[in-house]
Amino acid sequence: MNETRLMALLDAVGNGSVPASEAFARLRDFPAGEGAGFVLDTQRRLRTGLPEVIYGAGKSAQQIIDLARRLLAADEQVLATRVDAAKADAALAVVPELVYDATARLLYTRPVAIDESRDMIAVVCAGTSDLPVAAEAALVARCLGNPVEQFADIGVAGLHRLLARLDRLRAARVIIAVAGMEGALPGVIAGLVAAPVIAVPTSVGYGANFGGVTALLAMLNSCAPGVSVVNIDNGFGAACCADAINRPHRQH
Amino acid sequence: MNETRLMALLDAVGNGSVPASEAFARLRDFPAGEGAGFVLDTQRRLRTGLPEVIYGAGKSAQQIIDLARRLLAADEQVLATRVDAAKADAALAVVPELVYDATARLLYTRPVAIDESRDMIAVVCAGTSDLPVAAEAALVARCLGNPVEQFADIGVAGLHRLLARLDRLRAARVIIAVAGMEGALPGVIAGLVAAPVIAVPTSVGYGANFGGVTALLAMLNSCAPGVSVVNIDNGFGAACCADAINRPHRQH
Amino acid sequence: MNETRLMALLDAVGNGSVPASEAFARLRDFPAGEGAGFVLDTQRRLRTGLPEVIYGAGKSAQQIIDLARRLLAADEQVLATRVDAAKADAALAVVPELVYDATARLLYTRPVAIDESRDMIAVVCAGTSDLPVAAEAALVARCLGNPVEQFADIGVAGLHRLLARLDRLRAARVIIAVAGMEGALPGVIAGLVAAPVIAVPTSVGYGANFGGVTALLAMLNSCAPGVSVVNIDNGFGAACCADAINRPHRQH
Amino acid sequence: MNETRLMALLDAVGNGSVPASEAFARLRDFPAGEGAGFVLDTQRRLRTGLPEVIYGAGKSAQQIIDLARRLLAADEQVLATRVDAAKADAALAVVPELVYDATARLLYTRPVAIDESRDMIAVVCAGTSDLPVAAEAALVARCLGNPVEQFADIGVAGLHRLLARLDRLRAARVIIAVAGMEGALPGVIAGLVAAPVIAVPTSVGYGANFGGVTALLAMLNSCAPGVSVVNIDNGFGAACCADAINRPHRQH
Amino acid sequence: MNETRLMALLDAVGNGSVPASEAFARLRDFPAGEGAGFVLDTQRRLRTGLPEVIYGAGKSAQQIIDLARRLLAADEQVLATRVDAAKADAALAVVPELVYDATARLLYTRPVAIDESRDMIAVVCAGTSDLPVAAEAALVARCLGNPVEQFADIGVAGLHRLLARLDRLRAARVIIAVAGMEGALPGVIAGLVAAPVIAVPTSVGYGANFGGVTALLAMLNSCAPGVSVVNIDNGFGAACCADAINRPHRQH
Amino acid sequence: MNETRLMALLDAVGNGSVPASEAFARLRDFPAGEGAGFVLDTQRRLRTGLPEVIYGAGKSAQQIIDLARRLLAADEQVLATRVDAAKADAALAVVPELVYDATARLLYTRPVAIDESRDMIAVVCAGTSDLPVAAEAALVARCLGNPVEQFADIGVAGLHRLLARLDRLRAARVIIAVAGMEGALPGVIAGLVAAPVIAVPTSVGYGANFGGVTALLAMLNSCAPGVSVVNIDNGFGAACCADAINRPHRQH
Amino acid sequence: MNETRLMALLDAVGNGSVPASEAFARLRDFPAGEGAGFVLDTQRRLRTGLPEVIYGAGKSAQQIIDLARRLLAADEQVLATRVDAAKADAALAVVPELVYDATARLLYTRPVAIDESRDMIAVVCAGTSDLPVAAEAALVARCLGNPVEQFADIGVAGLHRLLARLDRLRAARVIIAVAGMEGALPGVIAGLVAAPVIAVPTSVGYGANFGGVTALLAMLNSCAPGVSVVNIDNGFGAACCADAINRPHRQH
Amino acid sequence: MNETRLMALLDAVGNGSVPASEAFARLRDFPAGEGAGFVLDTQRRLRTGLPEVIYGAGKSAQQIIDLARRLLAADEQVLATRVDAAKADAALAVVPELVYDATARLLYTRPVAIDESRDMIAVVCAGTSDLPVAAEAALVARCLGNPVEQFADIGVAGLHRLLARLDRLRAARVIIAVAGMEGALPGVIAGLVAAPVIAVPTSVGYGANFGGVTALLAMLNSCAPGVSVVNIDNGFGAACCADAINRPHRQH
Repeated sequence: MNETRLMALLDAVGNGSVPASEAFARLRDFPAGEGAGFVLDTQRRLRTGLPEVIYGAGKSAQQIIDLARRLLAADEQVLATRVDAAKADAALAVVPELVYDATARLLYTRPVAIDESRDMIAVVCAGTSDLPVAAEAALVARCLGNPVEQFADIGVAGLHRLLARLDRLRAARVIIAVAGMEGALPGVIAGLVAAPVIAVPTSVGYGANFGGVTALLAMLNSCAPGVSVVNIDNGFGAACCADAINRPHRQH
Repeated sequence: MNETRLMALLDAVGNGSVPASEAFARLRDFPAGEGAGFVLDTQRRLRTGLPEVIYGAGKSAQQIIDLARRLLAADEQVLATRVDAAKADAALAVVPELVYDATARLLYTRPVAIDESRDMIAVVCAGTSDLPVAAEAALVARCLGNPVEQFADIGVAGLHRLLARLDRLRAARVIIAVAGMEGALPGVIAGLVAAPVIAVPTSVGYGANFGGVTALLAMLNSCAPGVSVVNIDNGFGAACCADAINRPHRQH
Repeated sequence: MNETRLMALLDAVGNGSVPASEAFARLRDFPAGEGAGFVLDTQRRLRTGLPEVIYGAGKSAQQIIDLARRLLAADEQVLATRVDAAKADAALAVVPELVYDATARLLYTRPVAIDESRDMIAVVCAGTSDLPVAAEAALVARCLGNPVEQFADIGVAGLHRLLARLDRLRAARVIIAVAGMEGALPGVIAGLVAAPVIAVPTSVGYGANFGGVTALLAMLNSCAPGVSVVNIDNGFGAACCADAINRPHRQH
Repeated sequence: MNETRLMALLDAVGNGSVPASEAFARLRDFPAGEGAGFVLDTQRRLRTGLPEVIYGAGKSAQQIIDLARRLLAADEQVLATRVDAAKADAALAVVPELVYDATARLLYTRPVAIDESRDMIAVVCAGTSDLPVAAEAALVARCLGNPVEQFADIGVAGLHRLLARLDRLRAARVIIAVAGMEGALPGVIAGLVAAPVIAVPTSVGYGANFGGVTALLAMLNSCAPGVSVVNIDNGFGAACCADAINRPHRQH
Repeated sequence: MNETRLMALLDAVGNGSVPASEAFARLRDFPAGEGAGFVLDTQRRLRTGLPEVIYGAGKSAQQIIDLARRLLAADEQVLATRVDAAKADAALAVVPELVYDATARLLYTRPVAIDESRDMIAVVCAGTSDLPVAAEAALVARCLGNPVEQFADIGVAGLHRLLARLDRLRAARVIIAVAGMEGALPGVIAGLVAAPVIAVPTSVGYGANFGGVTALLAMLNSCAPGVSVVNIDNGFGAACCADAINRPHRQH
Repeated sequence: MNETRLMALLDAVGNGSVPASEAFARLRDFPAGEGAGFVLDTQRRLRTGLPEVIYGAGKSAQQIIDLARRLLAADEQVLATRVDAAKADAALAVVPELVYDATARLLYTRPVAIDESRDMIAVVCAGTSDLPVAAEAALVARCLGNPVEQFADIGVAGLHRLLARLDRLRAARVIIAVAGMEGALPGVIAGLVAAPVIAVPTSVGYGANFGGVTALLAMLNSCAPGVSVVNIDNGFGAACCADAINRPHRQH
Repeated sequence: MNETRLMALLDAVGNGSVPASEAFARLRDFPAGEGAGFVLDTQRRLRTGLPEVIYGAGKSAQQIIDLARRLLAADEQVLATRVDAAKADAALAVVPELVYDATARLLYTRPVAIDESRDMIAVVCAGTSDLPVAAEAALVARCLGNPVEQFADIGVAGLHRLLARLDRLRAARVIIAVAGMEGALPGVIAGLVAAPVIAVPTSVGYGANFGGVTALLAMLNSCAPGVSVVNIDNGFGAACCADAINRPHRQH
Repeated sequence: MNETRLMALLDAVGNGSVPASEAFARLRDFPAGEGAGFVLDTQRRLRTGLPEVIYGAGKSAQQIIDLARRLLAADEQVLATRVDAAKADAALAVVPELVYDATARLLYTRPVAIDESRDMIAVVCAGTSDLPVAAEAALVARCLGNPVEQFADIGVAGLHRLLARLDRLRAARVIIAVAGMEGALPGVIAGLVAAPVIAVPTSVGYGANFGGVTALLAMLNSCAPGVSVVNIDNGFGAACCADAINRPHRQH
């Protein structure tokens, strides 16, 4: 439920074009709809500009299906993160509105409406192995309506690959920089552009990488100001941050 | 050296109002001016929108004074972070253009020109003990030209204090949320507003707080999307991120 | 063997209604009954008010079955934690007195006698993924005789879901608050209620969550006093603490 | 402001014994009184049963004095933790209502009213070096109105010292067990008594003690159920937990 | 090759009862016999009193078989640790001299000659789940010739179980104390006996146990002197230490 | 593309022996060739003396095959690290130029041209379990053209095994020392030789070894100067360092 | 109170040479004597063979003095560890029986009676900077009656220094090996001798040494069996272990 | 004692130009000279090419003076690291051969003989605050006879500063790259040059920098091969590695 649609519904009730009983049915679960073991936050988009998103990692296929149906019934966008292929197959089999992106591990509803009046979000990743996290960030940002450009495998071990794309990076309103190993890419980019940089450490690496901790720490210690950081492998969170930056400011 | 001033200088040379020799003197150190043990990045503002800032922690008073004089000679803003009182006194004694804020530990040049056409940046802190970090964030954001509002001591142990300020928080273009101990404030705020939230963990606490690590980790794991995080006690970095978000987008 | 039953047995021997030989058979293993690789602490309930509980994680199905039979033979309640489905199936096949709860991973004897004269224990969890730990806490608390109410998926990212349940939370004698990720829920609750809050961090999350360490540290650093913490995913331990708080005080 | 006093004030206004203007003056700051850099949570005791407590570690003497005066003006108890001797001297010099306990590092108002109808809280510590933390726990518990008994230097290296005090420990409604080094004391006690045990790790030790982390971890992993844990050196928090357990349950 | 046998061989050559060529064959690999990817330290027993032991964890079944055959050919005892069942089966099929203990995961040669003139080594473990590590310690100690007594499931949560065995513990020349979780057992024992205590932390536990780190740290911080510690789950190492203590001192 | 071959190609174009169109085809991807999700750094050997190497861990078999074909098409050496057997089989089936070393987990092109004018690189490992990492180091060093000698199982627990090989170690231009567990070998070697020692910690060990962290830390703290360290299990990186040391210096 | 003296006292009462009242005075505090904030474990030597030792780190000079006087009054040896110079001076001024060793930071009573019938304990340290810890170990071992030989600065970076002392090391009944930095010394020694080795990590080092953690971990992971470890800088604990090993076995 | 001088001395004895008694005096302490608490490794330079260096951190001024005099008496170079100003002043007052560099904290003997036939070692540092560590590396490398060039303040936040110095970096035989914070500099350099890169993390930074751990981890995880790493702030060790690389290879 976003602002426009809530206002329209109330207007429609006011002018009689929608019976109160129907409006009631659609608002019944507002601001929170309860189910078996979950409480859907249907007011979230109004408060935060972001839809209620399903965190798929700790849930069964059936729980994801139930939540998706609840959202569809409420005419809401479905967006489920960290859904593995088996759960996705189960959901696709019974909820035809859904599509699945195996690289990004996202289950979501099409069509996604890109708001072309917005600026572009650039999603950059250091190595081929970082692609899944970058894919999650890029697809979530698109699902939230943002134009996105992606740039892969331009890590700091071959700087000319990065410098060759500087023009497009400078055109972005915000840059999501994804890197594992030593995590140097976001800092190097932040020293070259004026846009805010959201750094996403990945768990790519081994040994003293500690599942992404090294990249995380390096990004938090970037000597180039203008870098902020999200959790390891959290492409979804980075996309939400970038969307909040790129979204037109609501003046209250 | 920002874009406007570089263009103006080149125009002035073009129309003869400034002799080439004088322009040479002012551009001599462009893009980098070298001194004893340092290389001033005079091109930084052009690339990133941020001035060259002096990191005061590892430098002697004399090094800070030398760098400040170089920046003043280049007609640049001076902004030095993490300057303790003793070094500040030494600098104030010989560089009259400087002022010092003891809470924020910042040494900088006045007057600061607030750009009232920009949106407001809110700087929130959880407890009284977090004030120095919040002060650094707020003052740096102001030095970079942003209107800033500050809110202190509204941590999650007394939610009504936070809820009472929700209107002003919702009016902000970006929120810097500063907290120590369990670091819950940024996540709670991000669940209530649409603006991007820059979380700053502080080292306030003891025992299993580990000098701010607990707050840092909690912020990175916020279940409310839209939170990105900077280093512990890094009010300066948060202000730079907020400035990059709040600054009008340069279309290349 | 609890106080009432020990007294009754001794009285019965005293008045001749139970022959000494039978009492001997039932007390034979008191205070500790030894088996192959284990020593059953049959005096525990007398000392601590809690029965001897089987920690299922490091034991074979056969070891669990042997221990359950020993407890049944001694007319004691059986309660085995962290029993996976395969071990549970093996036990259920040969010990008909047992029932199994797959979510809570508990194997135990029915019927459970709820002591309605006791106050209510509230078990709250932040997200759907935290349900197994909350289920363990709730079921153990019930097995120990306490009235329990459960509240799921009311994390701090949507505060209205929590505030809507405040009346029931305030009615509880003690609150068990279960949360993963940033672990903010127990502190927020402790700022709103007068009851003691037992915080249970869960391993729900990823990356810089470190298998629940972040939630654990955040809970230990809660700025709201009145929160104490148990081990990660330790719903069992939280229930024992809550039971000790809710149990009538034995005056010695 | 506790429940009784709020009701009495409103009754007094109702029956005319207190003019509305005076009631207004006393309730003016309710539920939160704002000052320079702080927001006093005057509603806290009503919500949580605990007064607003001043965390002295990150505050100047002047800030502590200001807060103490605000609380005294509101007829509230003053309790400030982690106040070092210098700050305490400054406060004692200008606020005659205060007293200072140097071992416990507490600054507070006398007289403390012990509620003799409550059960006893036992505060136990393992070694002489743990005394300051135990003193903080004991004095805070007394300030909150609880009868307290203290037992020092009865660590597990000489079990007979502990066993000799078992009777008094079994008489307690709740036990606060304070220990540094390997932190074994709370678990050993929890295996011997029925009362809930609040474990307080201390930073006493060296080397692989890591400032109390070892004791903290050991306590979290206690094999005796019924132990919950607070932050390292957090005698204050343990006392609040014990008070919440020992306080009569408010039925809503 | 131990001292006695080397002397005997040289004497035999001296008096002609063994031809030099045969002695040469048996000493050929002395002090080190090289194979494919390994160098057998055949001088080790002479230097350290301990045989060359095969660390099975990082080796293939074939490598273990090759090493065992080399040792058998040199008339040496075979002792291989951390051998899983599959590798053991492969070895047993082709090397009939070997026997396998599945609990202790040891592959070794019988008969083991217990030296009854030595004192007794006590191997104690806290819980049933610690049995495999205790079994490794006990069997290795026996393989090295020591009389051993084992005591299981006598952790500190039920002290009477431990106190009941104090007489036998006081009879031991050295005590190996095995415990997971909070690791308190060795310290409690060391406060009760005069023998040296070798503490073995195990990885039994979960959450903030960190795979045995908590037990390890607790043991290192034991407030009872006389405790020394080996690596987590290192029953083998503890047995070697105990053997070195229990072995008659070689005067050089 | 190395220096010699680039010069030769340009000379050939200059003297007409190679048509410009063919040179264009071979230089088309210079300095970087882009594919699906990757950007090949074809200029790397010119800049750094090392070929573009495929990091196999985070890539699919198909991605490895595509990259190998691109390199072969460009007449470049193929070297892919951390390739497991399944991926290797898939690649061997369709790219006949490749060979696979299962111990070293390397996929590469033969023949490897050893430059006999170079000095020897010694690769030493402490135990049999460290062999895979040592094999990776040795084979990569050979692939880069260096004469290599390998020494296995000569750890510090039997010093005579190491001392017996001192002559060959002293003949090496650089020594790669591979060790797990306590990681003492590189420091002991560095106290005995004049060559630089590259230390490679391995993840061999258990418990407080923490997957190689202990060996890594020990090597970083070596009291013998002349030791530098690479990541845990990073035989590849050590070989690159050794190659850079052993390669004749290019005077610019 | 050790066994001999307790027996003698009881015999003396039995034969009338000591009046019961005097024996009562001397046994009054047995098994534990309570003071202000401490409980003296006067039974400890009888149980464990070790006297009650004062841990000086967390105690005031006055507390140390009080404890020392209590021990002297009970005719017990005084041994206080980790006593800094200021506290020692205060104690020496008022308790003439005490002497102070500044390097070892020990305050103790002379004369120390060396039991020449015991074997020798060797105390070895790797570097000059490890001397204080080694001194504590050696002096405590002597205070407990053991003959001790000390060997300094024979770390593994110059093996010939160690090998030159091998004869004396092989003569020791037990070896205490003290080392900081990479902590390799105990493992190298354990590969060369048959005696048990007690390893003491020290906090000597910097950076990735982490205050002795690196040495501690390395020692726990020693590939030479027969090494057990005590806490960082815990020379006292190592001496107690060595004493327990070297002390004649009490047959119960 | 290096090779040349030992040969010359022996030749001189051989041809009678030096009496055996004088040679004896000079070789008296060979291979190790013992003093109070130290054993000088006078054979070190012969074995390793490096002199015996005094680690000044854990030593008193007097110990440093004694060692310096021993080295001077043996006609050896003196090089003491981590000597603070107070100790240095004490040494300079009584040992006139010494000079002190306060930035590098080195105490050493002049004149230093640079071997101009050697290649150049480049010492690069990222920021002004890293200068002391870089200074230690550069001065030690010079003391060992190497030509050195230093480059300061060319971190990755302003890449043009680094790229402008690429020619000199490519001329170096080996590069020491010193950086704190996110430690990205060595990896970026290694992607641009063919020389081996020795990375030195510094403790410059705060918060999640953890005293240099972040830089250390980032360097160990560099995605550019050819980087090896020494301990945090270990400029001395880096110089020794670089010297071993730059030193002509001794063919045995």
